[in-house]
Amino acid sequence: MTEFLDGLGGKVNIEEGERVDETGFGQLRLIQKPEEFCYGVDAVILADFAAKNVVSSAVRNGTDVICVDLGTGTGIIPVILSHKTSWSRLTGVELQTASYDRALRNACLNNLTGRLSFINGDVKESGQTWGHDLKGKADVVTSNPPYTEGGGGLKSANSAKSIARHETTANLEDFIRCAAWLLKDKGDFFMVHRPSRLVDICCLGRKHGLEPKDMCFVSPNKETAPNIILVHFVKGGGRQLKMHNPLYVYNMDGTYTENLRNCYK
Amino acid sequence: MTEFLDGLGGKVNIEEGERVDETGFGQLRLIQKPEEFCYGVDAVILADFAAKNVVSSAVRNGTDVICVDLGTGTGIIPVILSHKTSWSRLTGVELQTASYDRALRNACLNNLTGRLSFINGDVKESGQTWGHDLKGKADVVTSNPPYTEGGGGLKSANSAKSIARHETTANLEDFIRCAAWLLKDKGDFFMVHRPSRLVDICCLGRKHGLEPKDMCFVSPNKETAPNIILVHFVKGGGRQLKMHNPLYVYNMDGTYTENLRNCYK
Repeated sequence: MTEFLDGLGGKVNIEEGERVDETGFGQLRLIQKPEEFCYGVDAVILADFAAKNVVSSAVRNGTDVICVDLGTGTGIIPVILSHKTSWSRLTGVELQTASYDRALRNACLNNLTGRLSFINGDVKESGQTWGHDLKGKADVVTSNPPYTEGGGGLKSANSAKSIARHETTANLEDFIRCAAWLLKDKGDFFMVHRPSRLVDICCLGRKHGLEPKDMCFVSPNKETAPNIILVHFVKGGGRQLKMHNPLYVYNMDGTYTENLRNCYK
Repeated sequence: MTEFLDGLGGKVNIEEGERVDETGFGQLRLIQKPEEFCYGVDAVILADFAAKNVVSSAVRNGTDVICVDLGTGTGIIPVILSHKTSWSRLTGVELQTASYDRALRNACLNNLTGRLSFINGDVKESGQTWGHDLKGKADVVTSNPPYTEGGGGLKSANSAKSIARHETTANLEDFIRCAAWLLKDKGDFFMVHRPSRLVDICCLGRKHGLEPKDMCFVSPNKETAPNIILVHFVKGGGRQLKMHNPLYVYNMDGTYTENLRNCYK
């Protein structure tokens, strides 16, 4: 059953199975459908990592910044970046129509239609079915892609969830290739992924002209192995990698660390 | 002035500027020349990482194990491995004649000439000036190579120290290529390096058929960025990387951590 909510940018429909969550960033809220996909800490720390490590000349010079988020889902990363940065044009690309539709409503809900836009497209098809005007134009690209390799043969009961988590449609190389295609020379690409794919991330980045420049390993706590990796690539960047201090999500008493809490500011 | 010391394997000469250090591993001692090079924690944790993560079938089956250490210096890694493992043939390759000579004396000093041998050779010249009998024969290769990139133009006052620390003669790719040349299929290569070279390590490993399988980041303490990386490659290994728990050298009170102290066992 459809309900209607008074969003900051007009009336927004909320469909059955959807809910409206507070993001913790100002007054920003997000429509999500829990049985399909809800964003996690990964999206939050990626947005923070991007806002803090961007080197694009447009950002430094304070001119218009074009940022594209690949596999944006319901638009959480552009929504957070609208809060953390003054970047003027935040565009999310999402293959799944239902998620794309939620992203559009999230822009309206938060009165962000002037800065946020969304494309219902496949990262494998940039320059074909979408993005003709974006080639080499992006100052920044972000992505929280599906983590699990393969999965082309998966017959999941819930295909929306499967596409968001597995490389059912586009794989890691497709995301990296698309980012390289979108970016200006010296533009920034920020990606969050699993450490198990580190070698692929490095080799595919370099193959497509995106040099890893910063890396941060994220662990549940200081006694555990990292289970998330944040990577900052620069298109055409020089070969020198800076390793950041590790980010621990929890203190040993189970509370969030100060560094993690700072990502929510 | 030359002095003579009664080693476990016979009389050993100690030259001017050299000293004899306790290694902390049993009764093992090491002749070093401080003004040229002294081993650090890197060599110790690499030997420990190799002993604990080796998967070679020879090691699992308890048959003769051939291990080659590239850029062995005074032989610290083979010396430690003689203590930590039962590997039967530990061979160090060292370009610098003075270091090679110290390595020979270290084998004698510790009565290890039955297990340790050394080659005065260049990793760039495997199969040419040395190693004709070693191609594809090694079960394990280890290396603590020079860390600093380039340096070919360096005119250091002390060239022995410069060669040990900079890529003056052989570079990272030469070490990786040589390891791949020496190893059996599915053989293990263990290397310690700087995180700043991580992308090169991954890409060059894969280029030469050595797939990174395990990685451990080492930090001075839990609040600092890693400054050492341990990598375990397997020749012809599958594409899946396991990230180990981080290793911290110091507790926040400046004492060695228990995990670091365990590397000295």
